Amino acid sequence: MTDKTSLEFARDILANQPFSNLLGTEIHDFGGGKAEVSMPLRPEFQQQHGFAHGGAVGYLADVAMAFAGGSVLGDSVTVEYKVNFIRPGKGDRLIGRAKVIASGRTQAVVSCEIFTADSGVDGDTEKICAAAQGTFRKV
Amino acid sequence: MTDKTSLEFARDILANQPFSNLLGTEIHDFGGGKAEVSMPLRPEFQQQHGFAHGGAVGYLADVAMAFAGGSVLGDSVTVEYKVNFIRPGKGDRLIGRAKVIASGRTQAVVSCEIFTADSGVDGDTEKICAAAQGTFRKV
Amino acid sequence: MTDKTSLEFARDILANQPFSNLLGTEIHDFGGGKAEVSMPLRPEFQQQHGFAHGGAVGYLADVAMAFAGGSVLGDSVTVEYKVNFIRPGKGDRLIGRAKVIASGRTQAVVSCEIFTADSGVDGDTEKICAAAQGTFRKV
Amino acid sequence: MTDKTSLEFARDILANQPFSNLLGTEIHDFGGGKAEVSMPLRPEFQQQHGFAHGGAVGYLADVAMAFAGGSVLGDSVTVEYKVNFIRPGKGDRLIGRAKVIASGRTQAVVSCEIFTADSGVDGDTEKICAAAQGTFRKV
Repeated sequence: MTDKTSLEFARDILANQPFSNLLGTEIHDFGGGKAEVSMPLRPEFQQQHGFAHGGAVGYLADVAMAFAGGSVLGDSVTVEYKVNFIRPGKGDRLIGRAKVIASGRTQAVVSCEIFTADSGVDGDTEKICAAAQGTFRKV
Repeated sequence: MTDKTSLEFARDILANQPFSNLLGTEIHDFGGGKAEVSMPLRPEFQQQHGFAHGGAVGYLADVAMAFAGGSVLGDSVTVEYKVNFIRPGKGDRLIGRAKVIASGRTQAVVSCEIFTADSGVDGDTEKICAAAQGTFRKV
Repeated sequence: MTDKTSLEFARDILANQPFSNLLGTEIHDFGGGKAEVSMPLRPEFQQQHGFAHGGAVGYLADVAMAFAGGSVLGDSVTVEYKVNFIRPGKGDRLIGRAKVIASGRTQAVVSCEIFTADSGVDGDTEKICAAAQGTFRKV
Repeated sequence: MTDKTSLEFARDILANQPFSNLLGTEIHDFGGGKAEVSMPLRPEFQQQHGFAHGGAVGYLADVAMAFAGGSVLGDSVTVEYKVNFIRPGKGDRLIGRAKVIASGRTQAVVSCEIFTADSGVDGDTEKICAAAQGTFRKV
């Protein structure tokens, strides 16, 4: 299976997640214990102060880590995760980059960083927004 | 401030969260270090296997804990939280019940349980779906 | 197996943990998804400010939760836990009380509160010192 | 302050932690948001199966992250941390390597990996044993 095929496989899974469709999530990289996903920061994803709702940030961390873990485990579920909020989420979109710290036959420990991205004339400006760590288990 | 007024105050904050409006979240109890919230389990909140997306479950835990923490801290932010997934989320709706474990002048440690609820002829059947613990800080 | 026998069984396991012997840990209650343990707050368990070292507090949370989880799972291991530090640890001893939030055939989610205790003429004064939540898996 | 002086400063703090003296912890690197510490795996630090007690592993993660966080914050306390256990701890010693993911004026989010190390004729063999993430706050 080539990397391109792996990514297409991941896109199919994401396309079958109604919640990810609702939020406009895309996957850009998948395989070898890594994944990169992003979602647009639409006004309807904000909390009362105009920043990305923490629940949207946590959602993207879960998705990024689940795909990174799934790239080594196959079909798997989120056992648990924790997320630290570092900076208010604002800008064009959120990017989640996850990588497997360690994995065995049935379980993977995965970490993730979430960045806010803003497109400008000089290209993208990224700032870290949150960091997460979680446990994923093969089903 | 009466309890009823407190709850109305909390409803106003929730109504000012576009993401919570998008997801149809309601708050039923607020005050004294506790909060109860719920969201409908619409088909568009599912993952690829027909269960509630973990990101939706995590979102509701964040909301429930932020309100419980806010009831003792006032305006505050989520520093971090962790969530354990216990059972697939299915049924009519998700209910989040959070309570402050301990709080000081600037910080509260809060725990939360998320339940799935199904309405039937004999009334609601609730099952625990997830458990969370987090840190909230006054701003 | 009576409760008394269960507690004796737990005491045997604890007695076979060299690290718990080094720290003087005792178990007072065990069974039905619950456990209570304690350790003395000896001067050699302190950090540089004269309070219990966070690592000692975290250790006791791990022990309390592992026994609570083990009371429903049998022989099991700690998958992960998180601990929030609430108040500096000082006094005569630390007490850890853990209970299973939910458990299945192979896994339990457990929470724990750690208290500092000080013996006085009016009996013990307990204050909450830390709160933890973790995942335990049958082996 | 040169790096050497920073490391000496960190060694002085560690030397003032009775619990770290009891466990034989050493610090090898400190500064710029990073820290490396180690502790010997003495028989008295084991649990009932002959591996390092999880509480000892969690302790070392706390120490490593507190020093990494302290290198950017100055005097600070552990707000909370989570630790995932990856592989049983055995060998000559445990090594903890922590680095700051992000920090502001008052708070740092830090991650850590714990390795077991075994000295042999061909040099050290290291294996990852645990991974942690935590929050540290300036006092």
